[in-house]
Amino acid sequence: MATQASKRVLVVAGLGNGSGTGAATARLFAKKGFNVALIARGKDIVEKLSEEIRTSGGQAAPFAVESYSAQDIASAWGAIRNHYPSPEYNIRAAVFNAGYGVWKPFLDITPEEVQTSLQTNIASAFAFSREAILSFKENDIEEANGKRGILIFTGATASLRGNVVTSAFAAGKHGLRALSQSLAKEFGKQNIHVAHSIIDGGILVDRSRAQKGPEWEANEDVRLNPDSIANSYWYLTSQDRSAWTWELDLRPAHEKW
Amino acid sequence: MATQASKRVLVVAGLGNGSGTGAATARLFAKKGFNVALIARGKDIVEKLSEEIRTSGGQAAPFAVESYSAQDIASAWGAIRNHYPSPEYNIRAAVFNAGYGVWKPFLDITPEEVQTSLQTNIASAFAFSREAILSFKENDIEEANGKRGILIFTGATASLRGNVVTSAFAAGKHGLRALSQSLAKEFGKQNIHVAHSIIDGGILVDRSRAQKGPEWEANEDVRLNPDSIANSYWYLTSQDRSAWTWELDLRPAHEKW
Amino acid sequence: MATQASKRVLVVAGLGNGSGTGAATARLFAKKGFNVALIARGKDIVEKLSEEIRTSGGQAAPFAVESYSAQDIASAWGAIRNHYPSPEYNIRAAVFNAGYGVWKPFLDITPEEVQTSLQTNIASAFAFSREAILSFKENDIEEANGKRGILIFTGATASLRGNVVTSAFAAGKHGLRALSQSLAKEFGKQNIHVAHSIIDGGILVDRSRAQKGPEWEANEDVRLNPDSIANSYWYLTSQDRSAWTWELDLRPAHEKW
Amino acid sequence: MATQASKRVLVVAGLGNGSGTGAATARLFAKKGFNVALIARGKDIVEKLSEEIRTSGGQAAPFAVESYSAQDIASAWGAIRNHYPSPEYNIRAAVFNAGYGVWKPFLDITPEEVQTSLQTNIASAFAFSREAILSFKENDIEEANGKRGILIFTGATASLRGNVVTSAFAAGKHGLRALSQSLAKEFGKQNIHVAHSIIDGGILVDRSRAQKGPEWEANEDVRLNPDSIANSYWYLTSQDRSAWTWELDLRPAHEKW
Repeated sequence: MATQASKRVLVVAGLGNGSGTGAATARLFAKKGFNVALIARGKDIVEKLSEEIRTSGGQAAPFAVESYSAQDIASAWGAIRNHYPSPEYNIRAAVFNAGYGVWKPFLDITPEEVQTSLQTNIASAFAFSREAILSFKENDIEEANGKRGILIFTGATASLRGNVVTSAFAAGKHGLRALSQSLAKEFGKQNIHVAHSIIDGGILVDRSRAQKGPEWEANEDVRLNPDSIANSYWYLTSQDRSAWTWELDLRPAHEKW
Repeated sequence: MATQASKRVLVVAGLGNGSGTGAATARLFAKKGFNVALIARGKDIVEKLSEEIRTSGGQAAPFAVESYSAQDIASAWGAIRNHYPSPEYNIRAAVFNAGYGVWKPFLDITPEEVQTSLQTNIASAFAFSREAILSFKENDIEEANGKRGILIFTGATASLRGNVVTSAFAAGKHGLRALSQSLAKEFGKQNIHVAHSIIDGGILVDRSRAQKGPEWEANEDVRLNPDSIANSYWYLTSQDRSAWTWELDLRPAHEKW
Repeated sequence: MATQASKRVLVVAGLGNGSGTGAATARLFAKKGFNVALIARGKDIVEKLSEEIRTSGGQAAPFAVESYSAQDIASAWGAIRNHYPSPEYNIRAAVFNAGYGVWKPFLDITPEEVQTSLQTNIASAFAFSREAILSFKENDIEEANGKRGILIFTGATASLRGNVVTSAFAAGKHGLRALSQSLAKEFGKQNIHVAHSIIDGGILVDRSRAQKGPEWEANEDVRLNPDSIANSYWYLTSQDRSAWTWELDLRPAHEKW
Repeated sequence: MATQASKRVLVVAGLGNGSGTGAATARLFAKKGFNVALIARGKDIVEKLSEEIRTSGGQAAPFAVESYSAQDIASAWGAIRNHYPSPEYNIRAAVFNAGYGVWKPFLDITPEEVQTSLQTNIASAFAFSREAILSFKENDIEEANGKRGILIFTGATASLRGNVVTSAFAAGKHGLRALSQSLAKEFGKQNIHVAHSIIDGGILVDRSRAQKGPEWEANEDVRLNPDSIANSYWYLTSQDRSAWTWELDLRPAHEKW
């Protein structure tokens, strides 16, 4: 059994281009002493970010996947367990940050886009959660926080409301939220903490930076800083067993909602 | 353009074994003068129910599908439009009652069950909705209720809450609800009414009758009568444009919730 | 015990100037054969509406109150029970439509407005509900719908969301909704049906007619007709015990939400 | 104008007997360097807790109130502003933890209990919020977190659901939640952070300790530690302006929900 003496591992899935929530979480947890395993589609981003974290004095390893199919995700976790073998290491945290957003009038959405949304936003989260929970069940309970592990999902405004151009995205994000709530209820009893974070607003990533311009970027009141989201994930990770959060929302101070 | 002079058609998808909500809705709308098109997997049930409705003096036709894939659903709607050609007929109501329920501890759920849940509960609803809305857009606005058409989805307790054995089912039903809300917001402006009904309790169908016995069956306070659900769908259909319901819940008088 | 042979009575509280939901409900239920008891502040409106209903061939009686205090409401119900004595009559339906809306920036709201909002929107609803339930408990169960009685509350968008100028109104309406849900859960088991209707949009009443002008009035897609709301209350009243609705929303076809 | 150079003050209302959330928050913020102002009914508790905090090296002052009326709360804040005068001090955080719980079958609840619930849970929160926001508006924006101030409300399971014995309590807590959401939307734009915390489970206070016994007390998985709740309030206080939480829930790891 992996114990508290083991080195703690964080598995993150979903990194975008390395400027958003997943990458910020990886960097922060690495600074806090976690060994990081990075899952994303495409070798470039996982390798680049691993390299960056190691250069900064942290530990990280890349686990590129071809797709977010159940099989590819299971394979990635297999590779992670080989790379960070128990009991020297134990996987204590897992963040599912993958997602597929499509914003279109309903009649413009193709069946393929519906499939991709359901596969990436929900089915892959089932596969990822399965691996995380199977790993956590092998752990002892950490004294400081009463956990065998924590599994965090990144949600969105569309997790709570469907809207005129969000049918496919909202279906995916609602499904993910339902999964997270089911898991929180089923596995809390086993000291596995499951949390869901609703990101309600624009995140400062390279793409939005390019689209919205320097004024938006400079105004801390109107966009989410990925580092601040990562801080909330760290806070969730540190919550002790007597008071766990399943869900919180995060939005910029000036956001209209 | 199909007009109010045309004969009105209801399309229902999802019939179970013919003892539940979908079948009760078909029977009720047939009595109210609708021509019914029945979509379900398996020839037996659609043919048996069509026959039954015709014998009772109504109009109905069977449209069996191999699967609830987008393609099969689009084909079924093509056949329905051929069978009930515009402008003699016009499709005014569509009820999506298909669903796939799986109640299992999370770790017992297979990737295939996740896929089936997402496909049947959500992806097929996207395909069905697309066809319904494309049809409704061809209609004029009915004077009595201000509608080009109404699209009703059957939800469940799991539409609102995930629970310990409902991760896959709740993910599917949450996704369906998000779709219905997105459609209601997008197409209300075009006088297409989209509604979602949360069925919170056991429905009196053959299977539950067999499982729960005659006492449960006889006690009207503890189980939902499919005919009563169908009445609510008829009420939704008759709501005039000034006061449409997107969502209502339905449960037996004595249900604990 | 009041039985089904008795004449059915509806008690309505909250009538505005007689052009809105409460009055429309009174008129509709009177047409359906109910004897109506009208509670409102001010003699004029209850007497005028009673007269109007009687002139149209219905039965109605006025029960003006000085205030919506618990005492005044209990007194009004006492007078109603005297006017419509059991077992000749029995009170089968009660609609709480009173309310107090204040839309102001938070810092402009006075403690008195907060008090009035809590008193009118919530405390008076507790008093009204108490009387309704005490009356209903005396009734037998109606065969057609499985009810001893039905208690309906009129909610609003602010029942579900607080917003920048709705703090006092939303606090009142949220509280009312919580009451209705508690009652639905506690008294469903006794075959008392409790429902809550969320009115999400502008209602066509004299005041809004004056403010928004003839174009708005003429456009059935953009405002709620009180008669349509009343229809929904009638539908709720007729729901049989196997499928009761606690909550539904109502909005115009073109409402943005 | 009070600036960042000023000493920061926390105002807490609602202390129970000094063993719960309010007291734990006061202790924690005092340790973090806040000067604490304690509001509660009864001199004993505010004086005892002030003394305790000062003995531990913190700063605290007692502000007993006769009642939670708008007037008494305004007076207490007046006294606090005199005690901690600007610009030497500035009030940066306010926690409304007062509440009145009544768990009874609906027909056993008296009009007085309804009044007390509405007064203590909602009206007093309006008065407290008014004072907090008026104070915060005088502050500059703190660089570290982008806030003029933070206002935190303690909610409960009953904030989200009415239940069979919670009508009066749930009405109060729903109303409080609506207030908090309205304030968050109105004052976020002014860099005032408003948050609402849903405590879903039993809190380890003297009373529950006595009722539930040593086994419950010893089991960290089944009850909320007030210190852990206080930690979440501290986390909310430290969130920077790019990612503020309006609402989070807190429950013990093994809580059934």
